[in-house]
Amino acid sequence: MKLASFYRPQSDEKSYGIVTEQGVIDAGKKLSDRYLTLQSLLHDNALDLLQELTACAVDYPTEDIVFLPVIETPGKIFCVGMNYADKRKEFEENNNAPTLFIRFADSLCAHKDNLIKPISSDEFDYEGELAVVIGRYASEISKEDALDYVAGYSCFMDATVRDMQYTWFTSGKNWLKTGGFGPWLVTRDEIGDPQALPIETFLNGMRVQHDTTGNMIHSVADIIQYISRFSPLSPGDVIITGSPGGVGKKRTPPLFMKNGDVIEVTIGGIGTLVNQIASQTI
Amino acid sequence: MKLASFYRPQSDEKSYGIVTEQGVIDAGKKLSDRYLTLQSLLHDNALDLLQELTACAVDYPTEDIVFLPVIETPGKIFCVGMNYADKRKEFEENNNAPTLFIRFADSLCAHKDNLIKPISSDEFDYEGELAVVIGRYASEISKEDALDYVAGYSCFMDATVRDMQYTWFTSGKNWLKTGGFGPWLVTRDEIGDPQALPIETFLNGMRVQHDTTGNMIHSVADIIQYISRFSPLSPGDVIITGSPGGVGKKRTPPLFMKNGDVIEVTIGGIGTLVNQIASQTI
Repeated sequence: MKLASFYRPQSDEKSYGIVTEQGVIDAGKKLSDRYLTLQSLLHDNALDLLQELTACAVDYPTEDIVFLPVIETPGKIFCVGMNYADKRKEFEENNNAPTLFIRFADSLCAHKDNLIKPISSDEFDYEGELAVVIGRYASEISKEDALDYVAGYSCFMDATVRDMQYTWFTSGKNWLKTGGFGPWLVTRDEIGDPQALPIETFLNGMRVQHDTTGNMIHSVADIIQYISRFSPLSPGDVIITGSPGGVGKKRTPPLFMKNGDVIEVTIGGIGTLVNQIASQTI
Repeated sequence: MKLASFYRPQSDEKSYGIVTEQGVIDAGKKLSDRYLTLQSLLHDNALDLLQELTACAVDYPTEDIVFLPVIETPGKIFCVGMNYADKRKEFEENNNAPTLFIRFADSLCAHKDNLIKPISSDEFDYEGELAVVIGRYASEISKEDALDYVAGYSCFMDATVRDMQYTWFTSGKNWLKTGGFGPWLVTRDEIGDPQALPIETFLNGMRVQHDTTGNMIHSVADIIQYISRFSPLSPGDVIITGSPGGVGKKRTPPLFMKNGDVIEVTIGGIGTLVNQIASQTI
């Protein structure tokens, strides 16, 4: 299943549902007595309820919904830095431990929404990434069991204010609406091996990153094991698994995102996240 | 005013109130039709309501309450690293930008509660710090106005798993119940200049850190200006402003916290935060 959170201008309501080729099945409406958000449904480990709804007729064409971030307000968003071999070479990273930073929920933005470039930044860079959405409470999980705790996978545009990144990444990664998250999560049962997915980023149609998740240094299962040892994960929490090489900062000449640019992340088996760049006035 | 969040075993209820020399005035009970938590009261910028309650008789002796973290679930907890001259010398830090990392709320623990040392860590280190609690929504605030956005100040024990700190701090700073936060916040009107407070840390009664907040590299006002430029702050958000020198990792021989140790942070005008170290089974 492809599960999206969305807003419907027609009814001025937020909801979530199943995206099919025919359109959207509004699960939030059908389950409104129990689960008003995808996150609350995940909290009850109730994805099976959605499976039952896949036989329903669609409620609207997909064009009628305005996407929201797949999970609007995750409790925790962990981001893995320097997790692809090529990216590590570009940044001369030699540390072997998973390097983690954190995004706050207000740094997220949705599929088709504008990614906001601070007007003060001349180095607004792209990083296309695989996002993992947690489906069950996870504390001290073994690598072998780790993938059982995943609800599904999505695309992420971890847009980075390089000229404010300095140290430890917090500043460069937490500007409002700089983390594109969508268009939907594809449930784990449809993905198979999360380490065998082609991942590509396109800037104005030009392919600027391409790799496979097989080249991650720390696999999704490794990362869940590592994080859950010190910080419990809850349903709706998100892990962003790092960017392949090819980022704008390390190109000759450098290549950064500007007002009006279109940036896309495509991951095999998931889909394509599309965002346009808009400038902010600060 | 000294404002604390607390739990009352007698009634099995959480509340918050004013701590006086005579005991505790239970503001949560008196304002239960409007504000069930200190954070919700801050959200309405309603500290004046508490000022009116200071004339009330105390409801319980202070011994009857079990402290909670001053704010139990801050939306954002920003932590400033390497913010005292001596600490920067110890760690050979030369970067001039404020270096920020993030704690999640589940890493907090209360005054008199146990700080949890992971059993796998041999380097559980102390860092006594001044905590700033935000009182008003703050976005793009100037340095001149910054302190107007502060509700008050508290003590913080930023206990650190040094042997899992690696890079970017997230792992070493987010173990469950490793951030002592309390005992209360002292409202801004009673503090005057937050850059003129003596700060001391005692391990089993021995003074291991002592400095003044005047030796911060980035002042509280600087930090609020810096953060609010890229990430809006909301009432109840917390900024931890960095530790003075003297941490255990950089002593000869090193000095780390062990099961049963007592660690205290004393800040002039605020009070003393006391925690005991207990081991966790992981």
